[in-house]
This record gives sequence, structure tokens and C-alpha cells, in this order.
Amino acid sequence: MNESELYKLRHSLAHVMAQAVLTLQPDAQLAFGPPVDNGCYYDFKLSKPLTDEDLPLIEREMERIIKEDQKFDCTTLDKDTARAELLEERQTFKVEHLDFLISQGNDSFTFYKNGPFRDLCRGPHLETTKAIPRGCFKVDSIAGAYWKGDEKNPQLTRIYCLAFATKDELIHYCTMREEAKKRDHRLLGRELDLYSIKNEEVGAGLVLWHPKGALVRHLFETYLKEVHLDNGYEFVYTPHIGRSTLWETSGHLDFYKEGMFPPIELEEQEFYLKPMNCPFHCHIFKSGIRSYRELPLRFAEWGTVYRFERSGTLHGLNRVRGFTQDDAHIFCHPDEASKEISRVVRFSLQVLKTFGFENFHLYLSTRPEKRIGEEKDWDAAENALRAGIEETGLPYTINEADGAFYGPKIDVQLEDAIGRKWQLSTIQFDFNLPSRFEIGFTDVNGENRKPYMIHRALLGSTERFMAILVEHLGGAFPSWLAPVQVALVGVHSDVYSRLAEIESCFTEHKVRYERFDDGSFNKRIRHAITQKIPYTLILGNKDLENGTISIRPYGSSETEVMKLEEFVAKVKNEYPAKFVID
Amino acid sequence: MNESELYKLRHSLAHVMAQAVLTLQPDAQLAFGPPVDNGCYYDFKLSKPLTDEDLPLIEREMERIIKEDQKFDCTTLDKDTARAELLEERQTFKVEHLDFLISQGNDSFTFYKNGPFRDLCRGPHLETTKAIPRGCFKVDSIAGAYWKGDEKNPQLTRIYCLAFATKDELIHYCTMREEAKKRDHRLLGRELDLYSIKNEEVGAGLVLWHPKGALVRHLFETYLKEVHLDNGYEFVYTPHIGRSTLWETSGHLDFYKEGMFPPIELEEQEFYLKPMNCPFHCHIFKSGIRSYRELPLRFAEWGTVYRFERSGTLHGLNRVRGFTQDDAHIFCHPDEASKEISRVVRFSLQVLKTFGFENFHLYLSTRPEKRIGEEKDWDAAENALRAGIEETGLPYTINEADGAFYGPKIDVQLEDAIGRKWQLSTIQFDFNLPSRFEIGFTDVNGENRKPYMIHRALLGSTERFMAILVEHLGGAFPSWLAPVQVALVGVHSDVYSRLAEIESCFTEHKVRYERFDDGSFNKRIRHAITQKIPYTLILGNKDLENGTISIRPYGSSETEVMKLEEFVAKVKNEYPAKFVID
Repeated sequence: MNESELYKLRHSLAHVMAQAVLTLQPDAQLAFGPPVDNGCYYDFKLSKPLTDEDLPLIEREMERIIKEDQKFDCTTLDKDTARAELLEERQTFKVEHLDFLISQGNDSFTFYKNGPFRDLCRGPHLETTKAIPRGCFKVDSIAGAYWKGDEKNPQLTRIYCLAFATKDELIHYCTMREEAKKRDHRLLGRELDLYSIKNEEVGAGLVLWHPKGALVRHLFETYLKEVHLDNGYEFVYTPHIGRSTLWETSGHLDFYKEGMFPPIELEEQEFYLKPMNCPFHCHIFKSGIRSYRELPLRFAEWGTVYRFERSGTLHGLNRVRGFTQDDAHIFCHPDEASKEISRVVRFSLQVLKTFGFENFHLYLSTRPEKRIGEEKDWDAAENALRAGIEETGLPYTINEADGAFYGPKIDVQLEDAIGRKWQLSTIQFDFNLPSRFEIGFTDVNGENRKPYMIHRALLGSTERFMAILVEHLGGAFPSWLAPVQVALVGVHSDVYSRLAEIESCFTEHKVRYERFDDGSFNKRIRHAITQKIPYTLILGNKDLENGTISIRPYGSSETEVMKLEEFVAKVKNEYPAKFVID
Repeated sequence: MNESELYKLRHSLAHVMAQAVLTLQPDAQLAFGPPVDNGCYYDFKLSKPLTDEDLPLIEREMERIIKEDQKFDCTTLDKDTARAELLEERQTFKVEHLDFLISQGNDSFTFYKNGPFRDLCRGPHLETTKAIPRGCFKVDSIAGAYWKGDEKNPQLTRIYCLAFATKDELIHYCTMREEAKKRDHRLLGRELDLYSIKNEEVGAGLVLWHPKGALVRHLFETYLKEVHLDNGYEFVYTPHIGRSTLWETSGHLDFYKEGMFPPIELEEQEFYLKPMNCPFHCHIFKSGIRSYRELPLRFAEWGTVYRFERSGTLHGLNRVRGFTQDDAHIFCHPDEASKEISRVVRFSLQVLKTFGFENFHLYLSTRPEKRIGEEKDWDAAENALRAGIEETGLPYTINEADGAFYGPKIDVQLEDAIGRKWQLSTIQFDFNLPSRFEIGFTDVNGENRKPYMIHRALLGSTERFMAILVEHLGGAFPSWLAPVQVALVGVHSDVYSRLAEIESCFTEHKVRYERFDDGSFNKRIRHAITQKIPYTLILGNKDLENGTISIRPYGSSETEVMKLEEFVAKVKNEYPAKFVID
């Protein structure tokens, strides 16, 4: 089923659902009922409140209607007839909406009718309810809504219906949704004590990283910093606030002010929390006279930025007000751009693979109509990006004319363990800031030239990446990232002195462990599982006799017997290798 | 010579200097002339401007006066006589000051006279100018000043005179001052391209860490983070802003508002840049139910804080508006306090020793008159701190009643390479925040108790520490911290292919090097020296024949011949060892 057929299916189901609700509550007032990307919904003003128990009744009624093989017929009415008929049907919301449409200059309107139900509607619909595949939908949930989304308007009841092309697709969606719920990073964050997000006293959208979450972050940031150093990046540190003069020069106060926090006034100057790190990096570039010999310069910073998001739009770690970017700016000779892009694309992908992601799709956004900079630079930049993508052999899509006004870019999208797609790395040319900050380098002929500037962030926001990672892994971190790598469980107290020796060995080799001594054996094992600790080391009499340990990996019911040294080596071996992109 | 004798000496020299100036410029108007901690100064209104060339003339005239063996005589005059005489002498500033003193209720005044010079003055002075040791002073410099320090008042000429108890002390002071000038971290920061501090567009007091400075910081922070992990600390990350509600609970808005940046207003809430990390750490402690089994909890954060400093008081990296604290908060059972303090004192000292500091002096500040908390807690805290100090065997001073109202503390002072003293680590009890945030733990009997909370910062501010470190080392970082560890200098191009092999070896072993190929041999060697690179590797024909390298350490004129592997091992061996405090 193609997209437009699916649209018709979902749209038709909305009408069927409305008909079913009218059967059950004949005085229901209809509002809007559009298709959405997992089905459809319909809003009603009801005299009798609905509960979840009513949903199967609605569903059964819908099935009855579908079986009737109702045809969807379209008629066109002039505005007076339309208004008169809707008034007669006492559909006051529809009358109000019709009046709005008339005020916009419309004077004839289409209505779709199936069976006894008729709705003011632009269509399109299926030919008949028989075309609705068996078992492809499910009346899912009830929510509150306001007429036309405005909280000053009457409150309505919204009924959601899931709908897919086939029953199998519906089942798959429901399974994935259940899985996603279990993996919700807000829930897992609490259960695994990783971070806290909603703290009214601290402020909305401001994250507290608890020790376990902070350790995960420290571990992957440490790894990332090392590979950045190995791959020719240099670190810089810049402040979290900057004077208005900086944001005037950069253009942020002209083009990005809505995304920034309001200013702090101090000694007759204004300071803004930084929404981006770029202007500071431009200043560091400018701090000396630069020669072509020094290029490319690659300035990397784990820079925490602050952006204004309305409190209603905040969502877990996915949408916060303060987040840390793994940001870098590459300043290079125009002739080097192609090589740099090739390296940075491969570097990004290698970094993402380190976290266990496998399925990538790349997007290239090219020059938009309104743009600055010279055509030859856009040509060079787009060619470099395209070549960088093609070299990877990965699938990609070109978003024609979708680049920013200041340069083209690549976005890297990945698929998580349950098939959801996330946009992570961005590699973005910038022909704007080098001009605004008047930065240049002396080329081989002693002349002053403008470098190309490339923004890039691999994980994007550390906070959002943590959310994606937690959900991708279902909270079960691989051993190199797990806050606790090994749970130590002794079968009985006879083995405790041997456990102490194992602890010393782990401390020496920096294996992160926690010893579980309290409660029954089964309780301790369960605890290790709920904490999703990668390995549980179970020590019993037999191990004591044989000088071995028994290791049960997370998610397995099998136990493997091995020597302590072997296990330490195994854990060390699970740390990702460093790499250098040539 | 004790402090009060030195005071008299400096005060007397001020009068001698004023007499000398009056000899040279009889119409000079006298303002104030107090002793200061390296000598004295005197402010004059002069009709003829002075230049540096006049300073030796003043000095010679002072020597002549001293030889006259003038006695310092004190007389007391009533207000009318005093005023009449000063008027007659046309000393208008003195008259103005006398009027001020009269308005404050004074009605008799002392004057000190030596030779022809007389000054309204409270004394005390030496008996005679003969008591001024030979060669103990030096007329040092001229500066501008305002009458009574107010820029609305007339501008004056200030002449500084250095003065010490002996000629040797003066010479020592001048030598150290010259040395300090050469080591000025602002100067070295520019020469070694470490950071930039004054950037009008970015904002005063906001630091940009350039790649080389950032690498030094990254290297020592990485080391510090590792030893923190090894010593039982856990990391946390917290935001740079927090809602007013947080700072109300913590008391910062009541007691520390002047040190904070003004608020940011957002969606009818106020947010403040954090001046400290503590309130966030209290919230992380509060995020779960804590048992005595979990204690001590040691939360560490490299937290960047922002404090309001007036632009006039900003100074290099020593006094900035944004700086990163190596902050930690220890929450412990009261019974554990003593052990924790012992560990944290030894931990601090070990960390400071890692950077090459050797001479420490500890200060214990005890309970002040106005305080909160219970006496038994103050007893326990002070005892723990005193025991922790005594265990180290280091010299210490007790500052009685100098503690904060919320708890006693230890300050660690160290001496740098040229004898200057800097206060670095602080270990501070806090009986306030646990109450304000109502934090507690369940003790062994299941009862709720308040933990002790200990703030501690070892380096204090990373920025200020960098300034101290750069000046202590004169910019010559030890090899483990140097941005570039080895300069590669080939005697001629015949050795270049061997140099390339050496580069590969260094890359493999992560030895940070830079290859100097441009310019004459001597110029390249000089470049390595001005960049204060710890080792210069000089490769000549003989090395090529023998399969060796020649290494010249910074500051040495000797070259040592060794194998490449030996050198790599030597550099690796210079990294500081990790340590665990038992």
C-alpha cells in the first residue's frame, strides 16, 4: 500500500469511528478527525464521558459498519445549503468551521457520506469500507483536546485509532511501541539512577547527571577525546556567556535571538548564554596570524550551550534547555576541503559504530535559493560532501535546496535497535562566519585568504545522545560503558575471603564491580539483572576448589566457568579500539 | 627589624622623599605619603612634570638629607594654629584634609618635623634619619593618582619608593620582582599561545583557552579525574544556571547575591548563573533515599561557575568572571568525618606535589562568634581538621574564630619557585546546606540523620591555578604537561628520512612532538628554547651512523646521546604516578 492509499485508509477509518461514536452517543458533536502517522483520531464534544472500557465497544461497532460495505460518496454543496444542513444536524463546531472557510472566500464545499454518516470533508477516501483490511486497526486511547487547539475553546474528547496497511504491521507497531515504552530513557534513568530531569527547584530542562549516568558520560567522553586527539583535533575551552557585541558580529542576535535565553545586564553591558560555540572558536582562530602551513586547524570542544525552549516543549533528555555538544570547527584551505570532509564523514561513522549502531542513512542538503557566498565555493563544498558520502557506500538522499543560507551540509541518520530513526551527526559548511569575523590566513603566495569553515558535531547533544543510547540498549550498557561491570555474588559466606581477593584484583585492574552480600542468593541475582549489570560473577564451592569463577552475562541463563585472569582480559578486550582515519 | 620598626623606617622615608621633592620643586603641593608593604609613596601636585630621569636626582637628594642626621620631632598644635600655619605654607590639600579631620571632631593635631620639612602626621617615625640603613631604599617609579582616590578630584603625581630593612633585602626584592615580571602569566600566555584573557568583543574576565593552553589543562584534568576515581570519588555534571528557587533554598540570594550575575528572566521565572556547585550536589544527594551503607558519597565535578567581579578588579587569570572549580562535596556519617578529613588533606597535598610544589603551610580557621549548628558538631569538625593537619607534620597556623558561620575549614598555602605564597586547597565543613536542603540518611537503627557535608577544592579555580603554575614554572612545563614534548631538529636534510621514522615512533607512543625544518640550525634551536619545549632532539650524521639520537633538555647546554626507545621510555616515565590514599 502506498502512502496515498494509507492516507485514504486512515482518513476513512476516522469517518467510520465517528459513525460508531454517533451510534453509541447520538448527541455527540463532531469536531475534527484527521489521519496521523500511526492512524487517525477524531475529536468529539460528548455529553457522557468515555472510559477505556468503551474503546472495545467502539471498535466492535466499527467492525459492524465495515462489514456493511458502505460506499464513500462525495457531494458538493453551495455555502447556504451546506450551512443550513449542518445547522439542522446541530453540528455547531462544523458550522463554526464552515463560517471560517466562507470568511476565507470559499463558496462550495465537499461532503463525504458513508452509510448514515456524513461529514464536511475534503477527502480523499477509499471507495468502500470493504477496502479496509481485516484487523488493520485498533481503537487505542482517549485524550483531552481543545477545539482548534486553543485552551480558551471548549474541551473535547479525542479518540485515537491506530491503523496500518495490514494486521501484521499493526501488530509490529504495537510490539515496538511496547518495547519503546519499556526502554523509555526517563523510566530507565530513574530505575538505573542515571540522571534526573524534572526538578522544579533547579529549573525545567536542566539536567542533573547522577554518579552512574555521569560515569557513563565520562567513559564515552574520555574515549571520544582520545580519538579526537589521535585524529588531529585540538581542544579549546570557551566561556558559557559572551557579550552582546559577540552575538552581533556573529549574527545570532539578528537570526537566532528567539532560540537564545534573554540577556544578563552587567555594568551597562549585555551578556548572553551561548547557544553555540562557533563565535568563540572564530576568535581563537583570529588570536594569531595564521599561515597556510598551520591549516587545517580543528578546534574541538565539549561545549555546554543553552537554548530557549518553551517549557511545554521540553521532553526528557531529548529536548532540554542546556546540553553539551561534541562540537568542532575545522578551518581549512579551500583545496583541502575535500580531504577533510572525507575524513570527517568516516570519522563520524566510526564513532557511531563504536556505540553499536549499524544502520545509517545520509542526507545531503544543497544550496537553497536565498544564499550568501560564491558559486564556486558552493560547488566545491557540495562536491566535497557528495564525494565524502559516496566513498562510504552507504544509502543517501539529496535534499535539494534544503541547505542553510550559509552552506550545504550532511546529516547522518541512524536506526536504533527497534527500528526508530534518529538524526545525529551533522557536517555543515559555513561561508558566513569567516566573513563576519573577518578571519583569514596567509597563503603560499603571501596573500590573505578566507579559510573554509566546517562545523561538525558527531553525537550532537550529549544529553539527547544519552537518551538514544539508553533506549537503543534498553539500559543494558556494554561492559566498557556500564557504571558497574560486574556484580559479585557469593553462594554462601565460605567464599567471602576469596571474593575479597577478587575485589583486590578488580581494583588493581580497574574493573568496576559491586559486591552484593545482602538478601537471598536469588534476590541478589535478580538485583544484578534489574540493574542490567553486564556480568554477574557467581562464586560457589566448586569454584573455590577449582580456582575458577562462574560468569553469567546479562540476558543469559548460562554460566561460563573461567579463570579470573581470563575474565579480566575479556572485560579489557571489550573496550573499543582507538582508530586513526587516514 | 620588626614590623613596627619597618613601618617607622618606611614612614620616615616618605617624609625624606617629600623633603627632597620640595628641594627640587619648591612649589610642590603635598598630598598623602603613607608606608606600604614594599616601601612608601608620596603624592604631589607638581607644576613641572616628572620623568623617570628625575628619580635618581630625588634619590641623591634623599641621601644627602639622610646624611644630615635630621631628628624627627613631634609637636602638637591646636586646630586654629595648625590651619593658619598650613595656609601660610600654601599646602591646600593639607588644609582640606585638616578641615575634614576638624569636621570629624578632632581639635589638636600632631606634626612631625625633620630638618626644614614638616608634615601633618600621626607618626610614628624613627628618631633620626641616621637610623635609615645605607642602601635600603630606592626611588622606584612614578604613577598618576587622584586626591583621596576619587577621579573627580585633581590628578596628582605619585612617587613610589621601595624600602626594606637592609640593602640585601631590597636587592632580593628587586631580583624577585624582575623574575616575577619575566614569569608574568599574561606575558607567557601570549608568548606560548596558551590563552587569551582580554577580548573586548567576548567580554571582560571571560577566558579563551587556545589549543596549547587547553592541552595543558586537558592533561592535568585527565590525570586529576583518574586519581579522583581511584580515590573513591564519583563524578556528577550539573547545569550552569539554576532557578531562583534553588538559590533561595541554598541561601545564596540572601548572603551571596552581590557575588552573583544578575538574573535571566524566562517565562516568568528567574534563572541565575551558578556561583557555586553545592546546591546541585545537594539535590543529587536528595534524589534517592540514602542509607548509611552508601556513605561516604563523594561527588566531584569540574564545574564552571560565574561570579560578578567589577571590571576594574579583573586581573589576568587570577581574577576572572568565569572559572572552573575542581569541586567535590563529601557527604559522610558524622563518625566517618575524621577519617575522611585525614584522607582529603593527604589527597590534596599529594595532588599539589604532583605539580612540583614543595613548601606548604596549613591554616585552620575555627568557630566564629556568630555561627549555626551544634557545639558537638563544631567540636568534632575542628578536631577532625586539627588531627588531619597534625598527621601531615607540616607547619600550621590556627586562625581562631576565623571560620565561616557554617563551619570550620583548612586552607592550604603553598610557596612558588620565587617564594610567593598562594592559597590553594580549601577543605570546609558545612552545617548549613544539609539543613537548608533537608538532606538526611537512614542510620543503622533506621533513624533519619543529617550527614556531615564537606566542600573541598584542591586547585580551587583552574584558571587561577594555571596562572600560578605558569609563573611557578616560568612557562617551562614538565614533559608530562608540555603541549609539545619534543622539538625535532635535523642538522641537515640527509637525516630527514630518519626523522620521519622517529615521527612515526612518537605518534605510535603518543609522544607530542613538533618538527622544526624552517630556517637555520641555530634559529630552529632558538625557537625550541623560546617555546620552552622540554626536549630538543637534534639529529646529525653521527646519530645516523650510530643509530642514536641526541637530546638536549630545556635549560641545558649539554646534549645526551641515547637510543630512541630509551628516550621514549624516559618521557613516559616522567608522567606522574597514580596514587591511592589509604
